[in-house]
Formats: sequence, structure tokens, C-alpha cells
Amino acid sequence: MNDTICALATATGGALGIIRISGPQSLTITNTICQKNLSLLPPNTTHYTYIFNGEGEVVDEAIVSIFKAPRSYTGEDAVEISCHGSKYILSKVLELLVNNGCRMANPGEYTMRAYLNGKMDLSQAEAVADLIASTNKASHNIAFSQLRGHFSSELARLREQLLKLTSLLELELDFSDHEDLEFADRTELLMLAQTIDTHIVHLAQTFETGQALKQGIPVAIIGKTNVGKSTLLNRLLHEDRAIVSDIHGTTRDTIEDTIDIQGITFRFIDTAGIRQTTDQIEQIGIERTYQTIEKARIILWLIDQEPTPEEIQGIKQKATNKSLLILQNKTDLGPAPCQSLSALSPIPISAKTGQNIQELEKRIYKAANIPELQENDIIITSARHYQALLQAHENLSLVLQGIRAQLSGDLLAEDLRLVLENLAQITGQQKITPYEVLENIFKRFCVGK
Amino acid sequence: MNDTICALATATGGALGIIRISGPQSLTITNTICQKNLSLLPPNTTHYTYIFNGEGEVVDEAIVSIFKAPRSYTGEDAVEISCHGSKYILSKVLELLVNNGCRMANPGEYTMRAYLNGKMDLSQAEAVADLIASTNKASHNIAFSQLRGHFSSELARLREQLLKLTSLLELELDFSDHEDLEFADRTELLMLAQTIDTHIVHLAQTFETGQALKQGIPVAIIGKTNVGKSTLLNRLLHEDRAIVSDIHGTTRDTIEDTIDIQGITFRFIDTAGIRQTTDQIEQIGIERTYQTIEKARIILWLIDQEPTPEEIQGIKQKATNKSLLILQNKTDLGPAPCQSLSALSPIPISAKTGQNIQELEKRIYKAANIPELQENDIIITSARHYQALLQAHENLSLVLQGIRAQLSGDLLAEDLRLVLENLAQITGQQKITPYEVLENIFKRFCVGK
Repeated sequence: MNDTICALATATGGALGIIRISGPQSLTITNTICQKNLSLLPPNTTHYTYIFNGEGEVVDEAIVSIFKAPRSYTGEDAVEISCHGSKYILSKVLELLVNNGCRMANPGEYTMRAYLNGKMDLSQAEAVADLIASTNKASHNIAFSQLRGHFSSELARLREQLLKLTSLLELELDFSDHEDLEFADRTELLMLAQTIDTHIVHLAQTFETGQALKQGIPVAIIGKTNVGKSTLLNRLLHEDRAIVSDIHGTTRDTIEDTIDIQGITFRFIDTAGIRQTTDQIEQIGIERTYQTIEKARIILWLIDQEPTPEEIQGIKQKATNKSLLILQNKTDLGPAPCQSLSALSPIPISAKTGQNIQELEKRIYKAANIPELQENDIIITSARHYQALLQAHENLSLVLQGIRAQLSGDLLAEDLRLVLENLAQITGQQKITPYEVLENIFKRFCVGK
Repeated sequence: MNDTICALATATGGALGIIRISGPQSLTITNTICQKNLSLLPPNTTHYTYIFNGEGEVVDEAIVSIFKAPRSYTGEDAVEISCHGSKYILSKVLELLVNNGCRMANPGEYTMRAYLNGKMDLSQAEAVADLIASTNKASHNIAFSQLRGHFSSELARLREQLLKLTSLLELELDFSDHEDLEFADRTELLMLAQTIDTHIVHLAQTFETGQALKQGIPVAIIGKTNVGKSTLLNRLLHEDRAIVSDIHGTTRDTIEDTIDIQGITFRFIDTAGIRQTTDQIEQIGIERTYQTIEKARIILWLIDQEPTPEEIQGIKQKATNKSLLILQNKTDLGPAPCQSLSALSPIPISAKTGQNIQELEKRIYKAANIPELQENDIIITSARHYQALLQAHENLSLVLQGIRAQLSGDLLAEDLRLVLENLAQITGQQKITPYEVLENIFKRFCVGK
């Protein structure tokens, strides 16, 4: 924490590249490579400058932005150097910074410093990585809400209620010689503890939605050979991309077999398998289909002729607890009657011509069964938070049992303290967050954040 | 030029993403999406702000940098928004800017505006693209020297000399009735024109080096099946990458089959072929080898046993005008005498253990025969500049012929004007101001005449 770190904060390959420097020596080290005295200039200003290598040669012309503690991302003195985005220049400038006393930053180290300097709590810091990784409105809103502290505020409210519970217990201890007082207190204690527990359980329950939104909702396209599975996949991918390609520009390459419908990502699982289906012999194909179904949350069963009752039964059995959409493909070749399916509301489509694909997208969205989200809704997306909430619930259940079993207040207080610690783990406000825990959280960040 | 443009200035996938806005409405459009009044704030300052979508929701927290005309890259009012590097955020912010009156910028449009606003000339503007693409010291130095105007200054000097030549011709015309004066003038004219032409030819000749440095020097590894070609390639690639990987970080994926030796890129051609060699039948392999040699500037001929005189003769014949290095591989298995090769200074190496690979790299560097470059050396890398210089040389040759053939001054002046135009094309200053010509003529006159 006493050293000065540097890293590339942008991806390589653009017109500009930003190098971020943070720590007590940020300005003096930058002074050396710019041959300027930036230290006396006011913070939050930008300056045009040359960058020199050690031998007096100019490496680049750059814009340097100055930030001074505590008014910076990390809360430390900081500098951002905006260079030409050449790999040579960026690696050279980093090399010069390292030669003059900087250390290359570890992944997430800027945000870790922001946390350690009290600029944000741990759950907010974690939200930064999620925010950067967000590719659609839903995952963006969840991460940004968490970054802005909505989850932290909710935890603070729970903490307040837990402290109230603790103080009620303390009160009880003070009056423990008055045996008649105990019963009344315990009713209030029980109600309060139950209210808190309901809240904690509710938060933990949002994890499933959070996971679905963060990782994308897994969708399987199944059906017999030549029924049009890969045509349908391409159609769905294409419909979506056509909308976003105008602005996304370079992002298209990295969106792979996912589509966004109303801000939610749907991920087509095992699509390599779909594309290879025609190469598979039928028996292996069926096995593969069942495996695909296993991992999916939504199943698109593509048919072009009436399935047998056994087939319907087989698929329905495998699709228990999942959303099954039956798609009658190839409407461009004329209607397929499929009387036996009418109870299952099959959707007539043409993957080839695109007929009814918009309706299909609506049905896929509906099948995801994602609750309507408001801007400030709190949705848990981190497994670490989920675990902490589950532990808090477990410990609080012990408290509830204890209250009902008339356990003495000092025993209950011990469990209550654990609940408080469980919640404090989320925001990193327990007394000492072990360095390994922090390291583990921040190592999944990109370097430069 | 009257509209306001926006674009992502960084690659996607980093911690930060920078959106650049330039044009008269830069500040007012940014005001709208930030719900702030930035217009009254001083230029060259940075400001923390929220970015709002049209519906009052916050899209991101960002740092906005303000630049005011003419003190910006483009010479116009400009804003840079530093957002979290999420694809969703970046495309959303661009969408908001477009909805509020920005136009998505065309490739190079910022630099084009910088040129049109007189912030740089055309050759400097072109250097920006080369600078961003530079991956090693040599290509960086050439581009940066050009950006800083060293080539432009050289062209300005040539232009001055050409104008001097023009004014000498004008002078001759004025005194054309004095026939005895003509001869003396023509000698001076001839000498001056020859000096200029030598300069132009010298500049044009640097194009070969420039191309080699910009595109990388093509190297072919040839040799029989199982002689260790792909092991050698991997060894060379690995040796290099181990050095740079500490700092380059994310760039490794994009460096493909090139190595840097002392700041110069060497590019292994047809390496896909090298890797597939073992799958090829021998006859096709030989054909392929010859094709590879054709495209190479340096040939690494890898052997593990003494070649026949016919083989040596065959390779030497194909390698005419190229640098041929003979490598005795597999020194780890014991020395191979290869007496017949000693005159060709074969290099004993072990691709497997890495023995003598550093020496090989030195020899490869030497074989490239790149002149020792000084920081401010002018090297032409653009085919457009090369063409313009060749045309200037052609037109100047006509002038030289004309002088020798005693053509009249007004005919020569016409060709001279073409030379000036050819050079002006490079810096984008095509329109020859007649005033300049006049000024140049009269400043050589004595006062009072």
C-alpha cells in the first residue's frame, strides 16, 4: 500500500491507451518521465506533455490527468496518461514507469486500494468487476445498483436491526433477576429475529435470478436431424445482432451464441453439438440431446412433423422443472397440423424466412420467468455473498431456536454476533479481512482496475 | 465539419473505455447526458459526473475531460468521457450521444479534422495511424519522427530550394534579351536541380527499408522433414516472448509468428506450411519450399546432415539476392562435421535445447542489413509518399533534361511547378500560393530595385 502501482487501464488495439498510476509517488515518477513538474499543478487538470525515455528521446506525446488524494478512484495521489494506443508505446511507458519506481499492479489492485482507503465497501468493490463485464441492461443495472451502495444500505439496515436485537438481549441480561420480565421480552425478540431472518432469506433467494442474469439463461435447441436447429440458431443470433451492430462496432466477435431479449442474455448451450448434429448417428444424438436438456433452463423443441406420443412423453419427462417451448418449424413449406400438440401451444415458425421469430423471442423471454426488475432492486450475483447470507440465516435460525428454547441471553448473543459477522463479511467491515480473502476477490478483476 | 462526432477511442475489453466527442456541440450534448453545465468550466479540467439515460436512470459514473478550440487534438471543442469499460455502458453512452445530436465518426475523422483545422499537415496526420500500429522501436521511431514533422521539414527545405530554382528561372526570363547571361545562369540552375533531385531520390530509396521495418522482415525457415523447423520456430518465438511477456500482458495473443530483435520485427512467412510439412509428400514439400524462399528476405536453411553439392547449389541459386543462413541443428546430439559447408559459415544450433539461439538472433539481425537508424532519420513508409517522390523525380528529370537542352525558362517553369505539386501532395498543401513564389523571387533582390 505504500508503493506506487501502474497498469494499462484500457484494452490494447484502440486509438488511445490509458495508463493508470496510483500511490504516493505517482506525481514524482510521472515528473521524471515527462521532464516536467506536475506536482505543483492543481488536481483535476489535464496537461499536454512529451514522454521521454531515459536517453532523452521522445517516446510519445500524451495528455496527463492529475488526481490528488483523497479525490481519486483509489483515494491516493494518481495520474492517468493518455497515450497513442500503440503496443510499443504502451509497453515502453510502463517500462519507464517501472524503471522509475512504479510496480506493475496486480489484477483489481486499484479497486482493492479504493476499498482499503474507504472509498467503497467490499460489495461495492466487487460490483466494479461485474459492471465492467456487463453486456446488457439487466446485468448492468444489478452491478451498478450494487456499486452505488443499495445492497450495502440494505445490509446496514439489517445490521441496525441485529444490533437492536442484541441490545434487547443485553437489556434482558440486566434484568435477569426479574423472572417475570423475561417472557414479554422474548416475544418481541422472536418477532424481530424472524423479521430479520425473512429479509436475509429473501436476499439469498435472489441469487438464482442473479446467476441467471449474470451468466445468461441457458437455452437448448433440440430436435431431429435436419429439422432446422442450426438455421434457427443463426436466425436468432442474426436478428439480435442486426439491431446492435450499428453501435457495438468491435464487440460482435466476442458475443458468441448469446442473444439479448429485452435486456436479458440468453445463452445457447452446447451449440457446437447443434452444429455437428448432422454428423452424429441417431443414438449418440439422442444421448447428447438429453445432456443438453439437463443444463438448460429453457428448451426449444423444434419439430417439422407430428411427434409420437412416446416422443412427447419422453421430452416432457426430461423437461421437468424447465420451460419447454414446442416450435413447429418450416411454416414456409405450408402448415403442419400437429393436432396432438395443441394443448402444448406450439409456436409455428420458419427459421428459414424468419416468420414469427419476434413472437418466439417474446415467448422465450416469458419462459425465463425473470421477475420484473426495478432500477434499485437488490439482486445477489456473487456466490460469496450468497454463502454469507446462508450462514447468516443458519446462525440466525440458531438464535430463533434458542429464543424459543428459553436459552440464556449470553448464549444467544454469541450466535447473534456470528450473524453480524456473516453480514459484515459481505461489505468487508469485519474487524480484519484476511489478505487472502481480498486477494481472492480482486484476482478475478482485469489488470488496470 | 459543422457537426459533432463521437466514437470509442479505446478498444473494448479494458477496465476503462474512452469516448471522444469533437465539434461545436461537444459541450452542450455532453451537458444533456450528464445533466450538468460543463460549458462554463475551464478547459483542460476533469470532472466526476453521472451519465443519465433519457429516463432519469444513471448509466455510469464517469470522468469527463473538457478541451476547448483550438487547444484540442482536432482543433475543435472536444470532450473525452472516461467510463467503465463495459460493452453495455460504452454502447449505451454512444447511443445517448447520437440521440442527442452527435454523429458516429468515420475512421480517422478526428485526425482528418486536425489536418483540416491546420493542427498538422497530411504526412503528419498519416503518421498518427502508423504510430498507433507500431509494435517495435524501429517502426515507432519512424512514425513518431514523421508525426513530429521531420519529414515535413525536409519537404519544406526541398520546396524552398525548388522555389529558389523557380526564381532563378524567372530572373533568366527577365534578362532573356541579354543572351550572354544565359549560360552562367544555366550552370547554377543545373547544379541546384541536381542537388534537389539527389535528395528526392535518396528519400524515395528509404522506402524499401521503411517497408521492411513497417511490415516486418520476411524470414523463411526451410529444410527437410524432421530437421526441426517447427521446433526452431517455437524456440525463436518463445525466446522473444519470454522477454516481453512481463510487460506486454494482453498483447501476446496478437503477436503471431513474429519476433523482435533489437527493435526490428522479423516475420516468419508461410509458417502454417512449416507446421504442416510432415503431412506433405516430399515433392510438394520442395515446391512449397521454393515458394517460401521467393517471398523471403532472409532464409534459414536448417540441416542435420551434410547436404549434397547439388542441394547446396540448388538452394544457393534460389537464394540469389537474399541472405542465406545455414543452420546445423541438433548440436545436442553431437557435432555434425559438414566439412563441405565451412566456407558458408554454418551456425551450429540446437533448436531443442536453445543452444546458440542468441548468436543466431544476432546473425538474423545482421542478415537483415538494415542501416543503423538515428532518432531523427527520415524513412518513407507510405506508398503514397513513395509515388509522389517518384513523380517528383520524374518531373525534375524533365527539368534537368530541359536545362541541358537549353529549353526556354517558361517551359521549365511548368515542369518545376509539377515537382512542387508532387511534393505538396505529401503534406496536403497542393495549392501553390503564387504570393509565395513572388515573395521568394523578390526577397533575393536588393532593396530599391
